[in-house]
Amino acid sequence: MSEFKTLRGMRDLLPEEARMMIFIQDTARRVARLYGYKEIITPVVETYELLAAKAGDEVRSRMFAFKDLGGRDVALRPEFTASVARLVATTFKNEAKPFRIFCLGSVYRYDEPQRGRHREFWQSDYELIGASRPEADAEILILTDRLMREAGLKDVAMKIGHVGVIRGILSQEGVDDREQNAVMQLMDKKEYGSAISLAEKSGISEKCVKVLEQLVQCKGNSVFEVIDRMKELAKDYGKSLESVENLKQILDLVTGNDDVINVSVDAGFARGLEYYTGMVFEMFIPTLDIALGGGGRYDKLVELFGGESTPAVGVAHGLDRVLLGLQNQKMTPKAEGRKTVFVFPIKEEQRAHALRISKLLRDAGIMVEDEVMGRKMTKALEDADRRKMDYAIIVGERELKEESVVIRDLKKRQQHTVKIDQLLNELRT
Amino acid sequence: MSEFKTLRGMRDLLPEEARMMIFIQDTARRVARLYGYKEIITPVVETYELLAAKAGDEVRSRMFAFKDLGGRDVALRPEFTASVARLVATTFKNEAKPFRIFCLGSVYRYDEPQRGRHREFWQSDYELIGASRPEADAEILILTDRLMREAGLKDVAMKIGHVGVIRGILSQEGVDDREQNAVMQLMDKKEYGSAISLAEKSGISEKCVKVLEQLVQCKGNSVFEVIDRMKELAKDYGKSLESVENLKQILDLVTGNDDVINVSVDAGFARGLEYYTGMVFEMFIPTLDIALGGGGRYDKLVELFGGESTPAVGVAHGLDRVLLGLQNQKMTPKAEGRKTVFVFPIKEEQRAHALRISKLLRDAGIMVEDEVMGRKMTKALEDADRRKMDYAIIVGERELKEESVVIRDLKKRQQHTVKIDQLLNELRT
Repeated sequence: MSEFKTLRGMRDLLPEEARMMIFIQDTARRVARLYGYKEIITPVVETYELLAAKAGDEVRSRMFAFKDLGGRDVALRPEFTASVARLVATTFKNEAKPFRIFCLGSVYRYDEPQRGRHREFWQSDYELIGASRPEADAEILILTDRLMREAGLKDVAMKIGHVGVIRGILSQEGVDDREQNAVMQLMDKKEYGSAISLAEKSGISEKCVKVLEQLVQCKGNSVFEVIDRMKELAKDYGKSLESVENLKQILDLVTGNDDVINVSVDAGFARGLEYYTGMVFEMFIPTLDIALGGGGRYDKLVELFGGESTPAVGVAHGLDRVLLGLQNQKMTPKAEGRKTVFVFPIKEEQRAHALRISKLLRDAGIMVEDEVMGRKMTKALEDADRRKMDYAIIVGERELKEESVVIRDLKKRQQHTVKIDQLLNELRT
Repeated sequence: MSEFKTLRGMRDLLPEEARMMIFIQDTARRVARLYGYKEIITPVVETYELLAAKAGDEVRSRMFAFKDLGGRDVALRPEFTASVARLVATTFKNEAKPFRIFCLGSVYRYDEPQRGRHREFWQSDYELIGASRPEADAEILILTDRLMREAGLKDVAMKIGHVGVIRGILSQEGVDDREQNAVMQLMDKKEYGSAISLAEKSGISEKCVKVLEQLVQCKGNSVFEVIDRMKELAKDYGKSLESVENLKQILDLVTGNDDVINVSVDAGFARGLEYYTGMVFEMFIPTLDIALGGGGRYDKLVELFGGESTPAVGVAHGLDRVLLGLQNQKMTPKAEGRKTVFVFPIKEEQRAHALRISKLLRDAGIMVEDEVMGRKMTKALEDADRRKMDYAIIVGERELKEESVVIRDLKKRQQHTVKIDQLLNELRT
């Protein structure tokens, strides 16, 4: 029989990695609660129609799509946004605004596997629905900062742009939405030359070409200097200028917060998904050269899913990338900080009694392993020692008569007899 | 545009339900730690070959199976056991025995939807690998008891059987494995008449028919009386008698534990999946008539996946069923027990300062919502009140000059000014 394996691009997280992943997930949930985001759980499998609606060609072509046994066209979610938009357009349509939604789970894309890129990966997703103001954009950026810090990541940087700056110019030059999408996709790939050539083919003016050429080079950490240059370049394009002003207000709020992450502005920064309408951002670890996630504003999305026009801003964090970042920092999962106890009955007759002692300990929150192999004591204790357990409790006939057990400190290699009703006190010290 | 919906049999868990589901999941993780089960995370999508290998015809025919973009035959896992067996046969093949594995996640079956039955559902799965003794079986039963209690379920009952009792008889009568599987599947559906007729067609003796007819009626809460009747019936079938004895030893350990769940024995109880070799069980809420999950011993499974012969016993709990049971008891999610605060800047100029105050509070673990709608104070406070928040903190120009803010108790409808450096103390009282 051939050896069974995981599928290409899919993987198992073994105990140590799984523990770090659960720690990251718990951190994401804690941050959600701190900011008032309510968790919802949506299905991994949704209709193809829903998931494909606004996914963008690239994501759409890489979806795990198939027909279910009822002949329905379905797919595994490649992200959470479509499911959230579905809920906002239906179940939550009468919910008072603003409201805040949090999702956490696995998503699926048939990408070429590489370091930090898997076909099944984990995201935490925060969506702030109903607020169009820069405070809302700033909230998403600031909570992302908090999540990365609380997870323990160092040296996270954030790149911020605004799709309205370039789209505003293209609109004013008469480039339609579909052509704009194609230009923005090239921008997303940093193929600025091709992007501008494509815009030229759509008939933009020579002056506009010059503006765009300079604009895509506007970037850096001195964010308000970059903003000033952007304003100067966009000065003849009303809508574009409004976007620069919006971006400035967001940055005022984010950088006004003490001790915030390393932010840079990049006027030519776009994101692959077509539904963004305003601020867009991505966070990454500069030394690792992979994105930890990103997001932005998408005020027209809910409408596209049949709901009322609803401003919204959100972010998805790649938790596998956060995990990779932590591993790269040589961070290991925190020790449980709790004692582990191995309970061993000397003879068969003491088995049921040993289980009662285990129960007593577990009731007090102590991690207990019972002997289930029928081994001799020496062998069993060696094994407990090898697995770095703290104590062994030996349940013998003679001690039981005196309502006692033997407690052995496996680290110090010392043991003594203790009354059962004193056992918890003994383990607490 | 037609309204987007979830697929038939799939559903969203909205905030209140999601919170209970997360509570149940956290409980399952806590129980895993108390018993030394290490969590692993395996993919939702695996090869069809792996998942179909030992799933049993019924589960196999209801899998979400499809070809991925690389033309591979894949499927969504209908349970965790195959993935765990894969790991035990490969990655963990040199791991010292015993070892304990825990999985938690969603699984997929194309069943007809009904109350408590969804096409995407959540399981917690505990597997004790490498131990063949009754202590191991008892551990799985006892930890299931603990999980159900810690989740808050009342009136859980457990039905225990042993597939070796009937299989032992059939083997001795010359019925081959495939025919036995068919008989056991009918037993699982409680179609005892058809099951025994089928066994007759396979050539069992008239005496054996009588034994089986009486055996399938052996059940009840007086477990050791039932065991005695089973022993009497199986007395001429050596292998069968060994199974009864094994079941008795497991029950000795489980009922020796104080205060254990409502256990009954049912000699005709079988489980649909073909891989069980010993004790099998199911837990349920009698008044609700749905199973909360089940498990048993499957000593040959790892071998079937290409590994070494490895005894194993495990259980899968249906977390959606646990949720349904809790809802049926009218249990609602516990209140967070933490104060919630709404922070409101009176004017635009105080926005960045308000964010700094929010940060101060969140750093202390307090749940804070910021104003992101640019509303007037009255409207914003009404909304905070409607959403049952505890306090509003109003950040105004005059107060800020004195390094103060106004704190308003939204429940008592009282407010006063407080120094910012006293704010945390104030909220802690």
